[in-house]
Amino acid sequence: MRYAIGVDLGGTSLRVAAVREDGHVLERATAQVKLLAGRDAVIEELCREARALIERHAADGELGGIGVGVPGIIYLDTGRLRKSPNLPGWEDYPVRDEIERRLGTPVALDNDANVAALGEHWLGAGRGLLPGADSLCLITLGTGVGGGLILDGKIWHGFLGMAGELGHINVLEDGAACGCGSRGCLETEASATAVVRMAMDVIGRDPAGALARAVHSGGQLTAELVYRCAQAGDEGSRQVYARVGHYLGLALAGLVNGLNLPLYVIGGGVAAAWDAFAPAMLEQLTGRSYIFAEGRTQVVPSGLHGDAGLLGAARLALAKP
Amino acid sequence: MRYAIGVDLGGTSLRVAAVREDGHVLERATAQVKLLAGRDAVIEELCREARALIERHAADGELGGIGVGVPGIIYLDTGRLRKSPNLPGWEDYPVRDEIERRLGTPVALDNDANVAALGEHWLGAGRGLLPGADSLCLITLGTGVGGGLILDGKIWHGFLGMAGELGHINVLEDGAACGCGSRGCLETEASATAVVRMAMDVIGRDPAGALARAVHSGGQLTAELVYRCAQAGDEGSRQVYARVGHYLGLALAGLVNGLNLPLYVIGGGVAAAWDAFAPAMLEQLTGRSYIFAEGRTQVVPSGLHGDAGLLGAARLALAKP
Repeated sequence: MRYAIGVDLGGTSLRVAAVREDGHVLERATAQVKLLAGRDAVIEELCREARALIERHAADGELGGIGVGVPGIIYLDTGRLRKSPNLPGWEDYPVRDEIERRLGTPVALDNDANVAALGEHWLGAGRGLLPGADSLCLITLGTGVGGGLILDGKIWHGFLGMAGELGHINVLEDGAACGCGSRGCLETEASATAVVRMAMDVIGRDPAGALARAVHSGGQLTAELVYRCAQAGDEGSRQVYARVGHYLGLALAGLVNGLNLPLYVIGGGVAAAWDAFAPAMLEQLTGRSYIFAEGRTQVVPSGLHGDAGLLGAARLALAKP
Repeated sequence: MRYAIGVDLGGTSLRVAAVREDGHVLERATAQVKLLAGRDAVIEELCREARALIERHAADGELGGIGVGVPGIIYLDTGRLRKSPNLPGWEDYPVRDEIERRLGTPVALDNDANVAALGEHWLGAGRGLLPGADSLCLITLGTGVGGGLILDGKIWHGFLGMAGELGHINVLEDGAACGCGSRGCLETEASATAVVRMAMDVIGRDPAGALARAVHSGGQLTAELVYRCAQAGDEGSRQVYARVGHYLGLALAGLVNGLNLPLYVIGGGVAAAWDAFAPAMLEQLTGRSYIFAEGRTQVVPSGLHGDAGLLGAARLALAKP
């Protein structure tokens, strides 16, 4: 049976796995990304990890290639990075060619959210979609907000390879300033960064509240801490997640009305707080999309718990013609 | 050369044309739709017009079928109407079967905006799109706001056949109430109906202004009249169209960020006021979509001046396998 190497290259960590074409993970490895060491050092490390896996699994089947998901926008024709806020200094770096040259193996490269959508489609929430309804939309709520569209079983890239920038759908006209140049993007209202910003407002308004106490007692202010406080009943923390759900629901309603896909998957770290934001999200969806209100559209949390990108990267290589 | 009958069935008029597969219109006919006479009377009239064209053009080539665009949502599998605000009482009416039965010819049925998008793709603004970038999005600004997506050369229906409901993308969270149950949809902020509503506000605020005078001197308050006043320099009328452009731009920016299509086409009666709303639309697009700001995405007015639906309906029949 064929297998592929999947690589999930993030701003802080590098994950590599050998994945069989039936979805079985043969082995996985993780390394720190030392961005300060420079692009070449990161690519060297990536290739070292990949090479080690390939050597150890030479007997397990034929290598079907290497798939790599990277944050940021990629020129699909050249395999170069256009722009990546999480990989500063990598602009115009020929990621694909550099890896191919070092490993002597074909490399399939794509945006991390597109690759994660492919992973969800292959082994996660999208498993079992039927022909004629073989499409899904993934929204990842992490430090930023990413998106990927699988239409009729394939990644929808758009004509420049830039499709799926769902984090920059506007949800609040005069909302917080976004790195993209706009304001009130889904990313500024529903990312982990947005949760922390809103939590700081809560602490400012209620410096003796549960959230403030949790931070003062040594907890780092993260989206996860805010979620734990929400679960413990802190009203301010609950409102932060209700607001996340509200704007996520607004954006989703537009996607449901426009694309009428059977499945929308919410991934990324913030998705772990599903029960805290889902009610407000579903309220917006029901009120703002009569297609959703028909009851046949599914919106679910990711089923792969952070592995979507890694598995999708392997799939990307295996699916390459 | 083959030809087809295209039918554009609206709430007030019925247009029928015989169109050759090279796009040449052999003949066209128009009739009033007398909704009060009932569904069967409308379908009878439609079939009478179609039959007359078929008889007169029997010598011009082989009939490739009949294509019909209807307002509202269609169950594609059964050819029945789900819901149509412009054709009240037609719910669950088997439009396709009724026409097929009367004419004895296969009928292809689709939503009017989807069919118009197909027309634009075939003979309008989308003519000459290249493989790999063979996609467009049509937004029609009429009494309501409709939408159609052509992805890789084909209508994108979504899994229930409800895709392209772009008029119900939210652009103003607490905007005007919409027939769909939501508030602040693109339809409530950028349709001809919205233009008239906003113009009434202008008249209320400035009862001696140019717009008020135009109405008092016998002009019916229509989107077209507001456009003429804007062209004549009336500030209130100009602001109405600037607002239309603003919200249209907001919705378009989300579509550009999500789908990254090469072409977005603005059709419907309001599109005639292009120069009045385009500057505000482009300002939003540029500020809210860095993909648009790259400069390779086109947003243009329809090139078919109201014929997109009629021609697209013929294309629908000709393209049917």
